[in-house]
Amino acid sequence: MTTNADATPWDGHGDTVPDDGPGETVPEDRLTATADNEGIDAAVAAARRVISALLHAGGNTAAEMADVADRLDAVADYLDGHAPSREDRMVDMWSGEGVTRHDPVTGPENAIAPPLTLTGHPDGSVSGTTTLGMAYQGPPGYAHGGVSALLLDHSLGVANHWAGTSGITARLTLHYRRPTPLFEELTVRARCTAVDGRKIHTEGTIAAGDTTYVTAEGLFIRKFVPLPS
Amino acid sequence: MTTNADATPWDGHGDTVPDDGPGETVPEDRLTATADNEGIDAAVAAARRVISALLHAGGNTAAEMADVADRLDAVADYLDGHAPSREDRMVDMWSGEGVTRHDPVTGPENAIAPPLTLTGHPDGSVSGTTTLGMAYQGPPGYAHGGVSALLLDHSLGVANHWAGTSGITARLTLHYRRPTPLFEELTVRARCTAVDGRKIHTEGTIAAGDTTYVTAEGLFIRKFVPLPS
Repeated sequence: MTTNADATPWDGHGDTVPDDGPGETVPEDRLTATADNEGIDAAVAAARRVISALLHAGGNTAAEMADVADRLDAVADYLDGHAPSREDRMVDMWSGEGVTRHDPVTGPENAIAPPLTLTGHPDGSVSGTTTLGMAYQGPPGYAHGGVSALLLDHSLGVANHWAGTSGITARLTLHYRRPTPLFEELTVRARCTAVDGRKIHTEGTIAAGDTTYVTAEGLFIRKFVPLPS
Repeated sequence: MTTNADATPWDGHGDTVPDDGPGETVPEDRLTATADNEGIDAAVAAARRVISALLHAGGNTAAEMADVADRLDAVADYLDGHAPSREDRMVDMWSGEGVTRHDPVTGPENAIAPPLTLTGHPDGSVSGTTTLGMAYQGPPGYAHGGVSALLLDHSLGVANHWAGTSGITARLTLHYRRPTPLFEELTVRARCTAVDGRKIHTEGTIAAGDTTYVTAEGLFIRKFVPLPS
Protein backbone atom coordinates (compact mmCIF):
# COMPACT_ATOMS: atom_id res chain seq x y z
CA MET A 1 0.00 0.00 0.00
CA THR A 2 1.21 3.44 -0.88
CA THR A 3 -0.02 6.01 1.55
CA ASN A 4 0.47 9.66 2.08
CA ALA A 5 -1.83 9.78 5.09
CA ASP A 6 -0.33 11.00 8.30
CA ALA A 7 -0.78 9.12 11.55
CA THR A 8 -3.58 11.50 12.44
CA PRO A 9 -6.58 11.93 10.17
CA TRP A 10 -6.15 14.57 7.52
CA ASP A 11 -7.64 17.82 8.78
CA GLY A 12 -8.44 19.01 5.29
CA HIS A 13 -6.24 22.06 5.54
CA GLY A 14 -3.41 20.80 3.40
CA ASP A 15 -0.75 22.19 5.68
CA THR A 16 1.14 18.98 6.28
CA VAL A 17 3.77 17.60 3.96
CA PRO A 18 3.73 13.81 3.88
CA ASP A 19 7.01 11.90 3.90
CA ASP A 20 6.11 10.13 0.72
CA GLY A 21 3.40 10.60 -1.85
CA PRO A 22 3.15 11.94 -5.32
CA GLY A 23 2.98 15.64 -4.61
CA GLU A 24 6.27 15.95 -2.79
CA THR A 25 8.36 17.39 -5.56
CA VAL A 26 5.76 18.80 -7.95
CA PRO A 27 4.92 22.47 -8.14
CA GLU A 28 1.50 24.02 -7.52
CA ASP A 29 -0.54 23.79 -10.65
CA ARG A 30 -3.95 24.52 -12.06
CA LEU A 31 -5.70 21.17 -12.51
CA THR A 32 -8.97 22.31 -14.04
CA ALA A 33 -9.82 24.57 -16.92
CA THR A 34 -9.98 28.29 -16.32
CA ALA A 35 -12.58 30.40 -18.10
CA ASP A 36 -11.00 32.87 -20.51
CA ASN A 37 -14.14 35.05 -20.62
CA GLU A 38 -14.18 34.96 -24.40
CA GLY A 39 -16.00 32.84 -26.94
CA ILE A 40 -18.04 30.01 -25.50
CA ASP A 41 -16.79 30.71 -21.97
CA ALA A 42 -18.35 34.17 -22.04
CA ALA A 43 -21.59 32.75 -23.48
CA VAL A 44 -21.71 30.13 -20.72
CA ALA A 45 -21.00 32.76 -18.07
CA ALA A 46 -23.98 34.70 -19.44
CA ALA A 47 -26.09 31.53 -19.34
CA ARG A 48 -25.19 31.18 -15.66
CA ARG A 49 -26.46 34.72 -15.16
CA VAL A 50 -29.74 33.75 -16.84
CA ILE A 51 -30.16 30.68 -14.59
CA SER A 52 -29.60 32.81 -11.50
CA ALA A 53 -31.72 35.71 -12.74
CA LEU A 54 -34.67 33.41 -13.43
CA LEU A 55 -34.49 32.14 -9.86
CA HIS A 56 -34.14 35.62 -8.42
CA ALA A 57 -37.04 36.94 -10.49
CA GLY A 58 -39.38 34.03 -9.80
CA GLY A 59 -42.84 33.64 -11.24
CA ASN A 60 -44.50 36.62 -9.55
CA THR A 61 -42.79 39.50 -11.34
CA ALA A 62 -43.91 41.73 -14.19
CA ALA A 63 -41.25 40.22 -16.46
CA GLU A 64 -42.72 38.96 -19.74
CA MET A 65 -41.71 35.35 -19.32
CA ALA A 66 -43.20 34.25 -22.64
CA ASP A 67 -40.89 36.73 -24.34
CA VAL A 68 -37.94 35.50 -22.27
CA ALA A 69 -38.76 31.93 -23.32
CA ASP A 70 -38.86 32.97 -26.98
CA ARG A 71 -35.51 34.76 -26.74
CA LEU A 72 -33.84 31.80 -25.02
CA ASP A 73 -35.38 29.30 -27.44
CA ALA A 74 -34.02 31.40 -30.31
CA VAL A 75 -30.52 31.22 -28.84
CA ALA A 76 -30.85 27.45 -28.39
CA ASP A 77 -32.09 27.09 -31.99
CA TYR A 78 -29.16 29.14 -33.26
CA LEU A 79 -26.64 27.03 -31.32
CA ASP A 80 -28.30 23.78 -32.40
CA GLY A 81 -27.95 24.95 -35.99
CA HIS A 82 -24.19 25.25 -35.52
CA ALA A 83 -23.58 22.10 -33.44
CA PRO A 84 -21.69 19.07 -34.68
CA SER A 85 -23.32 15.65 -34.36
CA ARG A 86 -23.46 14.27 -30.85
CA GLU A 87 -21.01 11.55 -31.86
CA ASP A 88 -18.46 14.03 -33.22
CA ARG A 89 -18.90 16.27 -30.20
CA MET A 90 -18.36 13.35 -27.79
CA VAL A 91 -15.00 12.74 -29.44
CA ASP A 92 -14.02 16.40 -29.60
CA MET A 93 -14.98 17.23 -26.00
CA TRP A 94 -12.72 14.46 -24.69
CA SER A 95 -9.74 15.37 -26.84
CA GLY A 96 -6.91 17.53 -25.62
CA GLU A 97 -4.50 17.62 -22.78
CA GLY A 98 -6.69 15.91 -20.23
CA VAL A 99 -8.28 18.92 -18.58
CA THR A 100 -11.97 18.83 -19.40
CA ARG A 101 -13.92 21.99 -20.14
CA HIS A 102 -17.43 20.56 -19.99
CA ASP A 103 -17.95 18.86 -16.61
CA PRO A 104 -20.72 20.02 -14.24
CA VAL A 105 -18.35 21.17 -11.48
CA THR A 106 -15.36 22.93 -13.02
CA GLY A 107 -16.33 23.23 -16.68
CA PRO A 108 -16.21 26.75 -18.16
CA GLU A 109 -18.41 25.36 -20.98
CA ASN A 110 -21.05 23.98 -18.60
CA ALA A 111 -23.50 26.52 -17.19
CA ILE A 112 -24.47 24.08 -14.43
CA ALA A 113 -20.94 24.28 -12.97
CA PRO A 114 -20.59 26.98 -10.25
CA PRO A 115 -17.69 26.75 -11.50
CA LEU A 116 -14.94 25.54 -9.20
CA THR A 117 -11.28 25.87 -10.25
CA LEU A 118 -8.91 23.45 -8.56
CA THR A 119 -5.20 23.88 -7.98
CA GLY A 120 -2.75 21.15 -6.97
CA HIS A 121 -0.35 21.76 -4.08
CA PRO A 122 3.11 20.33 -3.31
CA ASP A 123 1.75 18.46 -0.27
CA GLY A 124 -0.43 16.34 -2.56
CA SER A 125 -3.74 18.09 -1.89
CA VAL A 126 -5.90 20.06 -4.27
CA SER A 127 -8.10 23.03 -3.44
CA GLY A 128 -10.27 25.69 -4.94
CA THR A 129 -12.85 28.27 -3.97
CA THR A 130 -16.38 28.92 -5.14
CA THR A 131 -19.44 30.83 -4.02
CA LEU A 132 -22.78 29.10 -4.45
CA GLY A 133 -25.81 31.14 -5.47
CA MET A 134 -29.55 30.58 -5.47
CA ALA A 135 -29.41 27.76 -8.03
CA TYR A 136 -27.66 25.50 -5.53
CA GLN A 137 -30.04 26.00 -2.62
CA GLY A 138 -31.25 23.17 -0.40
CA PRO A 139 -32.63 24.39 2.96
CA PRO A 140 -33.48 28.11 3.04
CA GLY A 141 -30.22 30.03 2.60
CA TYR A 142 -28.00 26.96 2.54
CA ALA A 143 -26.47 24.75 -0.13
CA HIS A 144 -28.24 21.59 -1.20
CA GLY A 145 -26.59 18.53 0.34
CA GLY A 146 -26.45 16.93 -3.08
CA VAL A 147 -24.60 19.92 -4.48
CA SER A 148 -21.96 19.52 -1.77
CA ALA A 149 -21.72 15.86 -2.80
CA LEU A 150 -21.27 16.91 -6.42
CA LEU A 151 -18.45 19.33 -5.57
CA LEU A 152 -16.71 16.76 -3.38
CA ASP A 153 -17.07 13.76 -5.69
CA HIS A 154 -15.47 15.74 -8.46
CA SER A 155 -12.72 17.22 -6.30
CA LEU A 156 -11.79 13.79 -4.97
CA GLY A 157 -11.41 12.61 -8.55
CA VAL A 158 -9.17 15.56 -9.38
CA ALA A 159 -7.12 14.84 -6.26
CA ASN A 160 -6.57 11.31 -7.54
CA HIS A 161 -5.36 12.72 -10.84
CA TRP A 162 -2.99 15.04 -8.96
CA ALA A 163 -1.73 11.97 -7.07
CA GLY A 164 -0.90 10.33 -10.38
CA THR A 165 -3.78 7.86 -10.42
CA SER A 166 -7.42 7.78 -11.40
CA GLY A 167 -10.47 5.61 -11.00
CA ILE A 168 -14.22 5.65 -10.95
CA THR A 169 -16.16 6.23 -7.75
CA ALA A 170 -17.17 2.98 -6.05
CA ARG A 171 -18.31 4.43 -2.74
CA LEU A 172 -18.71 7.98 -1.53
CA THR A 173 -19.65 8.92 2.02
CA LEU A 174 -20.59 12.45 2.94
CA HIS A 175 -20.75 13.72 6.50
CA TYR A 176 -22.77 16.89 6.84
CA ARG A 177 -21.44 18.65 9.93
CA ARG A 178 -23.06 22.06 9.58
CA PRO A 179 -25.34 23.64 6.96
CA THR A 180 -23.19 25.04 4.12
CA PRO A 181 -24.04 28.69 3.48
CA LEU A 182 -24.94 30.18 0.11
CA PHE A 183 -23.45 33.50 -1.01
CA GLU A 184 -20.18 32.99 0.91
CA GLU A 185 -16.82 31.92 -0.46
CA LEU A 186 -16.27 28.24 0.24
CA THR A 187 -13.01 26.33 0.01
CA VAL A 188 -13.09 22.78 -1.31
CA ARG A 189 -10.06 20.63 -0.51
CA ALA A 190 -9.28 17.02 -1.36
CA ARG A 191 -6.40 14.60 -1.10
CA CYS A 192 -5.69 11.03 -2.08
CA THR A 193 -4.69 9.39 1.20
CA ALA A 194 -3.84 5.84 0.11
CA VAL A 195 -3.54 3.55 -2.89
CA ASP A 196 -3.96 -0.16 -2.21
CA GLY A 197 -3.77 -2.16 -5.41
CA ARG A 198 -6.76 -1.07 -7.47
CA LYS A 199 -8.33 0.70 -4.51
CA ILE A 200 -7.82 4.43 -4.16
CA HIS A 201 -8.80 6.19 -0.93
CA THR A 202 -9.48 9.89 -1.07
CA GLU A 203 -10.82 12.50 1.34
CA GLY A 204 -12.18 15.99 1.02
CA THR A 205 -13.79 18.91 2.83
CA ILE A 206 -15.92 21.95 2.21
CA ALA A 207 -15.04 24.75 4.61
CA ALA A 208 -14.87 28.49 5.10
CA GLY A 209 -12.20 29.83 7.39
CA ASP A 210 -11.95 27.50 10.36
CA THR A 211 -15.46 26.11 9.89
CA THR A 212 -15.82 22.76 8.17
CA TYR A 213 -19.26 22.13 6.73
CA VAL A 214 -18.97 18.81 4.91
CA THR A 215 -16.37 16.05 4.85
CA ALA A 216 -16.19 13.19 2.38
CA GLU A 217 -14.43 9.87 2.02
CA GLY A 218 -14.29 8.19 -1.33
CA LEU A 219 -13.26 4.75 -2.50
CA PHE A 220 -12.27 4.73 -6.15
CA ILE A 221 -11.41 1.73 -8.31
CA ARG A 222 -8.84 1.90 -11.03
CA LYS A 223 -10.58 0.56 -14.11
CA PHE A 224 -11.42 1.41 -17.64
CA VAL A 225 -14.97 2.53 -18.33
CA PRO A 226 -16.25 1.07 -21.60
CA LEU A 227 -17.62 3.57 -24.08
CA PRO A 228 -21.41 3.23 -24.36
CA SER A 229 -22.63 1.24 -27.34
CA MET B 1 -38.17 2.55 16.52
CA THR B 2 -40.71 2.79 13.78
CA THR B 3 -39.70 0.81 10.78
CA ASN B 4 -41.20 -0.04 7.47
CA ALA B 5 -38.21 -2.05 6.34
CA ASP B 6 -38.82 -5.65 5.43
CA ALA B 7 -36.71 -8.47 6.85
CA THR B 8 -34.77 -8.47 3.61
CA PRO B 9 -33.07 -5.32 2.36
CA TRP B 10 -35.26 -3.14 0.22
CA ASP B 11 -34.61 -3.96 -3.42
CA GLY B 12 -35.52 -0.47 -4.52
CA HIS B 13 -38.37 -1.60 -6.70
CA GLY B 14 -41.18 -0.48 -4.45
CA ASP B 15 -43.18 -3.62 -5.05
CA THR B 16 -43.52 -4.71 -1.45
CA VAL B 17 -46.15 -3.37 0.90
CA PRO B 18 -44.82 -3.08 4.44
CA ASP B 19 -47.00 -4.13 7.36
CA ASP B 20 -46.76 -0.73 8.89
CA GLY B 21 -45.47 2.60 7.73
CA PRO B 22 -46.93 5.87 6.68
CA GLY B 23 -47.86 5.08 3.12
CA GLU B 24 -50.22 2.21 3.82
CA THR B 25 -53.49 4.03 3.40
CA VAL B 26 -52.49 7.09 1.39
CA PRO B 27 -53.05 7.37 -2.33
CA GLU B 28 -50.34 7.85 -4.94
CA ASP B 29 -49.52 11.51 -5.16
CA ARG B 30 -47.28 13.98 -6.91
CA LEU B 31 -44.76 15.17 -4.33
CA THR B 32 -42.79 17.66 -6.38
CA ALA B 33 -43.81 20.54 -8.58
CA THR B 34 -44.74 19.82 -12.17
CA ALA B 35 -43.79 22.28 -14.90
CA ASP B 36 -46.83 23.85 -16.50
CA ASN B 37 -44.87 24.93 -19.60
CA GLU B 38 -46.08 28.50 -19.26
CA GLY B 39 -44.65 31.62 -17.71
CA ILE B 40 -41.40 31.10 -15.85
CA ASP B 41 -41.53 27.33 -16.33
CA ALA B 42 -41.37 27.76 -20.10
CA ALA B 43 -38.55 30.28 -19.77
CA VAL B 44 -36.59 27.88 -17.55
CA ALA B 45 -37.21 25.02 -19.98
CA ALA B 46 -35.74 27.22 -22.71
CA ALA B 47 -32.77 28.02 -20.45
CA ARG B 48 -32.17 24.28 -20.08
CA ARG B 49 -32.13 24.05 -23.87
CA VAL B 50 -29.49 26.81 -23.94
CA ILE B 51 -27.30 25.01 -21.37
CA SER B 52 -27.47 21.81 -23.40
CA ALA B 53 -27.03 23.54 -26.75
CA LEU B 54 -23.89 25.34 -25.55
CA LEU B 55 -22.40 21.98 -24.55
CA HIS B 56 -23.42 20.32 -27.80
CA ALA B 57 -22.02 23.19 -29.87
CA GLY B 58 -18.74 23.50 -28.00
CA GLY B 59 -16.07 26.06 -28.71
CA ASN B 60 -15.06 24.89 -32.17
CA THR B 61 -18.16 25.83 -34.16
CA ALA B 62 -18.91 28.76 -36.43
CA ALA B 63 -21.49 30.06 -33.95
CA GLU B 64 -20.89 33.70 -33.03
CA MET B 65 -20.39 33.16 -29.32
CA ALA B 66 -19.85 36.84 -28.56
CA ASP B 67 -23.30 37.50 -29.98
CA VAL B 68 -24.75 34.61 -27.97
CA ALA B 69 -23.16 36.06 -24.83
CA ASP B 70 -24.67 39.49 -25.59
CA ARG B 71 -28.14 38.02 -26.12
CA LEU B 72 -27.99 35.99 -22.91
CA ASP B 73 -26.62 38.91 -20.92
CA ALA B 74 -29.50 41.03 -22.24
CA VAL B 75 -32.01 38.45 -20.97
CA ALA B 76 -30.28 38.35 -17.58
CA ASP B 77 -30.28 42.16 -17.42
CA TYR B 78 -33.98 42.25 -18.25
CA LEU B 79 -34.80 39.68 -15.56
CA ASP B 80 -32.60 41.43 -12.99
CA GLY B 81 -34.53 44.62 -13.73
CA HIS B 82 -37.76 42.85 -12.74
CA ALA B 83 -36.52 40.86 -9.75
CA PRO B 84 -37.54 41.55 -6.16
CA SER B 85 -34.84 41.98 -3.53
CA ARG B 86 -33.05 38.80 -2.54
CA GLU B 87 -34.62 39.07 0.92
CA ASP B 88 -38.16 39.33 -0.44
CA ARG B 89 -37.52 36.53 -2.91
CA MET B 90 -36.18 34.24 -0.18
CA VAL B 91 -39.46 34.67 1.67
CA ASP B 92 -41.63 34.28 -1.42
CA MET B 93 -39.85 31.20 -2.76
CA TRP B 94 -40.42 29.33 0.49
CA SER B 95 -44.08 30.28 0.80
CA GLY B 96 -46.90 28.05 -0.34
CA GLU B 97 -48.05 24.54 0.17
CA GLY B 98 -44.67 22.98 0.85
CA VAL B 99 -43.79 21.84 -2.65
CA THR B 100 -40.82 23.91 -3.73
CA ARG B 101 -40.43 25.10 -7.33
CA HIS B 102 -36.81 26.24 -7.19
CA ASP B 103 -34.62 23.34 -6.00
CA PRO B 104 -31.77 22.01 -8.19
CA VAL B 105 -33.31 18.54 -8.67
CA THR B 106 -37.05 18.87 -9.19
CA GLY B 107 -37.56 22.61 -9.55
CA PRO B 108 -39.37 23.78 -12.69
CA GLU B 109 -37.93 27.25 -11.95
CA ASN B 110 -34.32 26.00 -11.69
CA ALA B 111 -32.58 25.38 -15.01
CA ILE B 112 -29.96 23.25 -13.25
CA ALA B 113 -32.63 20.66 -12.36
CA PRO B 114 -32.93 17.84 -14.98
CA PRO B 115 -35.82 18.03 -13.68
CA LEU B 116 -37.03 15.00 -11.77
CA THR B 117 -40.70 14.72 -10.78
CA LEU B 118 -41.37 12.44 -7.83
CA THR B 119 -44.58 10.60 -7.02
CA GLY B 120 -45.45 8.95 -3.70
CA HIS B 121 -46.76 5.40 -3.66
CA PRO B 122 -49.03 3.56 -1.20
CA ASP B 123 -46.17 1.27 -0.14
CA GLY B 124 -44.32 4.28 1.28
CA SER B 125 -41.80 4.68 -1.52
CA VAL B 126 -41.39 7.57 -3.94
CA SER B 127 -40.20 7.38 -7.53
CA GLY B 128 -39.71 9.40 -10.64
CA THR B 129 -38.00 9.24 -14.01
CA THR B 130 -35.54 11.50 -15.72
CA THR B 131 -33.14 11.41 -18.64
CA LEU B 132 -29.76 13.06 -18.12
CA GLY B 133 -28.17 14.94 -20.99
CA MET B 134 -24.70 16.25 -21.72
CA ALA B 135 -24.72 18.76 -18.86
CA TYR B 136 -24.64 15.92 -16.32
CA GLN B 137 -21.73 13.99 -17.80
CA GLY B 138 -18.94 12.46 -15.73
CA PRO B 139 -17.02 9.72 -17.59
CA PRO B 140 -17.53 9.74 -21.36
CA GLY B 141 -21.20 8.95 -22.02
CA TYR B 142 -22.10 8.40 -18.38
CA ALA B 143 -23.58 10.49 -15.60
CA HIS B 144 -21.31 12.28 -13.16
CA GLY B 145 -21.18 10.42 -9.83
CA GLY B 146 -21.92 13.67 -8.04
CA VAL B 147 -25.04 14.18 -10.12
CA SER B 148 -26.30 10.76 -9.04
CA ALA B 149 -25.59 11.84 -5.46
CA LEU B 150 -27.57 15.02 -6.04
CA LEU B 151 -30.58 13.12 -7.40
CA LEU B 152 -30.49 10.62 -4.56
CA ASP B 153 -29.93 13.05 -1.70
CA HIS B 154 -32.95 15.01 -2.83
CA SER B 155 -35.13 11.95 -3.43
CA LEU B 156 -34.32 10.57 0.00
CA GLY B 157 -35.46 13.86 1.49
CA VAL B 158 -38.72 13.72 -0.45
CA ALA B 159 -39.21 10.11 0.69
CA ASN B 160 -38.92 11.31 4.28
CA HIS B 161 -41.58 13.92 3.60
CA TRP B 162 -43.82 11.22 2.10
CA ALA B 163 -43.23 9.17 5.27
CA GLY B 164 -44.51 12.08 7.33
CA THR B 165 -41.17 13.25 8.66
CA SER B 166 -38.28 15.43 7.58
CA GLY B 167 -34.72 16.21 8.54
CA ILE B 168 -31.44 17.45 7.22
CA THR B 169 -28.85 15.09 5.80
CA ALA B 170 -26.27 14.01 8.40
CA ARG B 171 -24.64 11.21 6.42
CA LEU B 172 -25.11 10.03 2.87
CA THR B 173 -23.39 6.98 1.41
CA LEU B 174 -23.47 6.24 -2.29
CA HIS B 175 -22.56 2.88 -3.79
CA TYR B 176 -21.74 3.10 -7.48
CA ARG B 177 -22.46 -0.36 -8.89
CA ARG B 178 -22.35 0.35 -12.61
CA PRO B 179 -21.78 3.51 -14.67
CA THR B 180 -25.10 5.37 -15.06
CA PRO B 181 -25.83 6.08 -18.73
CA LEU B 182 -26.69 9.46 -20.18
CA PHE B 183 -29.52 9.82 -22.72
CA GLU B 184 -31.55 6.92 -21.27
CA GLU B 185 -34.59 7.11 -19.03
CA LEU B 186 -33.58 6.46 -15.44
CA THR B 187 -35.87 5.67 -12.53
CA VAL B 188 -35.03 7.12 -9.13
CA ARG B 189 -36.68 5.43 -6.14
CA ALA B 190 -36.40 6.15 -2.43
CA ARG B 191 -38.00 5.06 0.79
CA CYS B 192 -37.75 5.93 4.46
CA THR B 193 -36.93 2.60 6.10
CA ALA B 194 -36.83 3.51 9.79
CA VAL B 195 -37.32 6.35 12.25
CA ASP B 196 -35.45 6.06 15.55
CA GLY B 197 -36.05 9.11 17.72
CA ARG B 198 -34.50 12.01 15.83
CA LYS B 199 -32.72 9.67 13.42
CA ILE B 200 -34.32 8.97 10.07
CA HIS B 201 -32.97 6.16 7.86
CA THR B 202 -33.69 6.33 4.17
CA GLU B 203 -32.59 4.38 1.09
CA GLY B 204 -32.70 4.99 -2.63
CA THR B 205 -31.67 3.68 -6.02
CA ILE B 206 -31.06 4.83 -9.57
CA ALA B 207 -31.97 2.14 -12.05
CA ALA B 208 -33.24 1.42 -15.55
CA GLY B 209 -35.26 -1.72 -16.06
CA ASP B 210 -33.66 -4.48 -14.00
CA THR B 211 -30.28 -2.76 -13.85
CA THR B 212 -29.40 -0.85 -10.70
CA TYR B 213 -26.66 1.72 -11.17
CA VAL B 214 -26.38 3.49 -7.83
CA THR B 215 -27.74 2.81 -4.36
CA ALA B 216 -27.76 5.23 -1.44
CA GLU B 217 -28.29 5.13 2.30
CA GLY B 218 -28.97 8.31 4.16
CA LEU B 219 -29.10 9.25 7.82
CA PHE B 220 -31.18 12.33 8.42
CA ILE B 221 -31.65 14.22 11.68
CA ARG B 222 -34.88 15.91 12.58
CA LYS B 223 -33.93 19.46 13.47
CA PHE B 224 -34.66 23.03 12.66
CA VAL B 225 -32.16 24.83 10.46
CA PRO B 226 -31.66 28.42 11.62
CA LEU B 227 -32.12 31.09 8.99
CA PRO B 228 -28.77 32.62 8.05
CA SER B 229 -27.97 35.95 9.70
